[in-house]
Amino acid sequence: MKQTSKNIAIIGSGLVGSLLAIYLKRRGHLVTVFDRRPDIRNIEFSGRSINLAMSNRGWRSLREVGIEAEIKKIAIPLDKRAMHVVGKSQYYQKYGKEGEAIWSISRGVLNKRMIDLAEKAGVSFRFEEKVWDIDLPEAKVYTGETEKGHWSEYQYDMVFGCDGAFSRVRHKMQRRSRFDYSQDFIDVGYKELTIPANADGTHKLDKNSFHIWPRGRFMLIAMPNLDGSFTCTLFMPFEGEVSFENIRTKAQAKTFFSTYFPNVMQVMDDLMEDFFKNPTSAMVTMKCYPWSYWDKVALVGDSAHAVVPFYGQGMNAGFEDIYVLDQYMGQFGDDWETIFMKYQEDRKPNADAIAELSYRNFIEMSSKTADAKFLLQKKIEKHFAAKHPQKWVPAYSRVTFSERPYAEALAMGDAQEAIMQTIMNIPGIEKKWDSSEVEERMLGLL
Amino acid sequence: MKQTSKNIAIIGSGLVGSLLAIYLKRRGHLVTVFDRRPDIRNIEFSGRSINLAMSNRGWRSLREVGIEAEIKKIAIPLDKRAMHVVGKSQYYQKYGKEGEAIWSISRGVLNKRMIDLAEKAGVSFRFEEKVWDIDLPEAKVYTGETEKGHWSEYQYDMVFGCDGAFSRVRHKMQRRSRFDYSQDFIDVGYKELTIPANADGTHKLDKNSFHIWPRGRFMLIAMPNLDGSFTCTLFMPFEGEVSFENIRTKAQAKTFFSTYFPNVMQVMDDLMEDFFKNPTSAMVTMKCYPWSYWDKVALVGDSAHAVVPFYGQGMNAGFEDIYVLDQYMGQFGDDWETIFMKYQEDRKPNADAIAELSYRNFIEMSSKTADAKFLLQKKIEKHFAAKHPQKWVPAYSRVTFSERPYAEALAMGDAQEAIMQTIMNIPGIEKKWDSSEVEERMLGLL
Repeated sequence: MKQTSKNIAIIGSGLVGSLLAIYLKRRGHLVTVFDRRPDIRNIEFSGRSINLAMSNRGWRSLREVGIEAEIKKIAIPLDKRAMHVVGKSQYYQKYGKEGEAIWSISRGVLNKRMIDLAEKAGVSFRFEEKVWDIDLPEAKVYTGETEKGHWSEYQYDMVFGCDGAFSRVRHKMQRRSRFDYSQDFIDVGYKELTIPANADGTHKLDKNSFHIWPRGRFMLIAMPNLDGSFTCTLFMPFEGEVSFENIRTKAQAKTFFSTYFPNVMQVMDDLMEDFFKNPTSAMVTMKCYPWSYWDKVALVGDSAHAVVPFYGQGMNAGFEDIYVLDQYMGQFGDDWETIFMKYQEDRKPNADAIAELSYRNFIEMSSKTADAKFLLQKKIEKHFAAKHPQKWVPAYSRVTFSERPYAEALAMGDAQEAIMQTIMNIPGIEKKWDSSEVEERMLGLL
Repeated sequence: MKQTSKNIAIIGSGLVGSLLAIYLKRRGHLVTVFDRRPDIRNIEFSGRSINLAMSNRGWRSLREVGIEAEIKKIAIPLDKRAMHVVGKSQYYQKYGKEGEAIWSISRGVLNKRMIDLAEKAGVSFRFEEKVWDIDLPEAKVYTGETEKGHWSEYQYDMVFGCDGAFSRVRHKMQRRSRFDYSQDFIDVGYKELTIPANADGTHKLDKNSFHIWPRGRFMLIAMPNLDGSFTCTLFMPFEGEVSFENIRTKAQAKTFFSTYFPNVMQVMDDLMEDFFKNPTSAMVTMKCYPWSYWDKVALVGDSAHAVVPFYGQGMNAGFEDIYVLDQYMGQFGDDWETIFMKYQEDRKPNADAIAELSYRNFIEMSSKTADAKFLLQKKIEKHFAAKHPQKWVPAYSRVTFSERPYAEALAMGDAQEAIMQTIMNIPGIEKKWDSSEVEERMLGLL
């Protein structure tokens, strides 16, 4: 369907902002991206990022505009978890079927490449230009050095808010009546740490694994980078017995790492320095609705739906927003009010679903991994799925290796959970969990 | 316990702000109240208010500072609902036991009186002074004509945010990390209408009743004023078949009122004018946490917990905040960090409880009043409560005529609901609902 060329502003030059710019440019629009920060290509990346895991939804969105191959060059496939459990030797858990993998990418490296690609496509970037206000019904953008100083006014046909979980565009929408909004922080924070490469540039741990050191209420993860290093993330409660609050001195930090992560400690050269230099960051689930204002303004990505990172889907969900939005652009031409309406109605339940799934993964990891009954349940599911791969697709695969809606993955997961509740109530399930009786029962419940 | 005199700013001169000022003054502090609006005593009140229903919690808070009698002079006791149901003649439902009543007060009249009383107590008011920013750790307040113009800076020892559901003080706190926040609008709006007094100043409907015209998804209520008039509120969905959106012309409004409220229509002189002149307002449940910042800033009332008005407890909950806060002031002297901590830990679960109860009342009124099973359940509860008043205190009484925590009322209500689920599943309950068998069963379940 025909679409008239529009003059469009995107607020935020992050991953979602730069990919959306490429999509809009492809449809023939004039696109300007504003960012209050300097051009990320000219600066050292800040180091408060959990490495990204690109999965099917993300790749589909890149494929659509022909940049999948380009980005794969900077990604490392991970086909399994490497589990580092206390008192056991390291073991692996395959993520999915043969050929299924998630891909580790450094956020900084990816963002730089995306901006390059957008610029090559003809997108204009205005870095270090701070947007302080948006006139929503008029699609006007106001920028300036300081909030109280002189502002420049820009007139656009429409404005996209891709400015992340603490979005100013959304913030402006939030002050309106009938705008639903929530932000919920979890009591666990995270800190970035690094395992450097070997002297010859090779990786110190298996390169094609997502490494996890689960320790109950806290855990460490590591994802590989192209240069041989690993970006690690320590997740730990802010307060409490073992917590960020209670590690204030180098001696306390040393005790902590040598008690819980003695092997990792040996390969982290600058551990003490990193631990006290890098910030401790918070994690939030942010929901809102609506995501658009008339045919003038729309939110895309984290500005509309920020999730906790425990399903590795934040970026994938944002990229999928763009893919879906673009489909409606193709379908409804110049009728932007309908495009935005369809987009938000389509995406909102899926955004809520991945928020819920991500939060549940957090709860699972922090409180259930030591629960014998929970572990038995997971064992039964895995056993059954191996025997009946068509009949029992794990929620993780539905989310990660499929392009079906998140809401469907959540619903199917709930249905499986209901079945498992019945199965777990079978008397003596501990003894006969792998019996044909249990298998028949599960088949009957499906 | 000794408390040093502090220099305190209160943002907002509404009901909660002016009562808090009286409390703080009584404890010997220097108190200044800022309000961006003009002095309400010099202007016509705006007319987008649901009349207030003061109940036990509110009265206790006024009694504590000796102004209960003064305020009772401007209140009218309502000891019953007057139900105006289609196809039935008007009937009454007593609220509680003999002597129990809620009290109708006009918001404007009450607020003017409260400011008078605060001023008499020595509180300073700075009306039409707009607060644009708060320095939370420094307890500094910034005011000015416009957000972008020149600002004056005031230094205080502490600042209280009593600036309502759309609080700027909270807004400042919200931008910090780890601040939980949510705002949820319901899809029903409200509009104020008026039934004027008779020519001789008497009331056109029973003066000591809360009048309700329930109509399923929409309803009209009326509460008496001292001057013989009634302030009415029409609650109706914003969108849908019967909705504000679908009443756009005088002809449509006339059809609506003559179809659903023919009798009321006759006594509303300026109905058409009011309907189109008065705004349609939205209703929100707002939650947040924490409610304080160090020993410097605290939120009180709607700024900390706004609820939908269907339990008539918004003001009562805000006044109870002050009562509880003051108890901790008495207990912890100059240790303001502990005072604020205890206050928020005490009040948060109760604020959540009254939010939940208020929202449930909305759902009940809008979707369950036509449900035969629900009505039967209510009939059984009432029948049982009449026989065993000590054993079955309705949630409404626990909320309205008691000073026990809201959270307790919610928990007891849930326990009663669980019992009623069992009772409603008794085969043939429709026939034997008032039998001794059912009564015995309920006694056994208590």
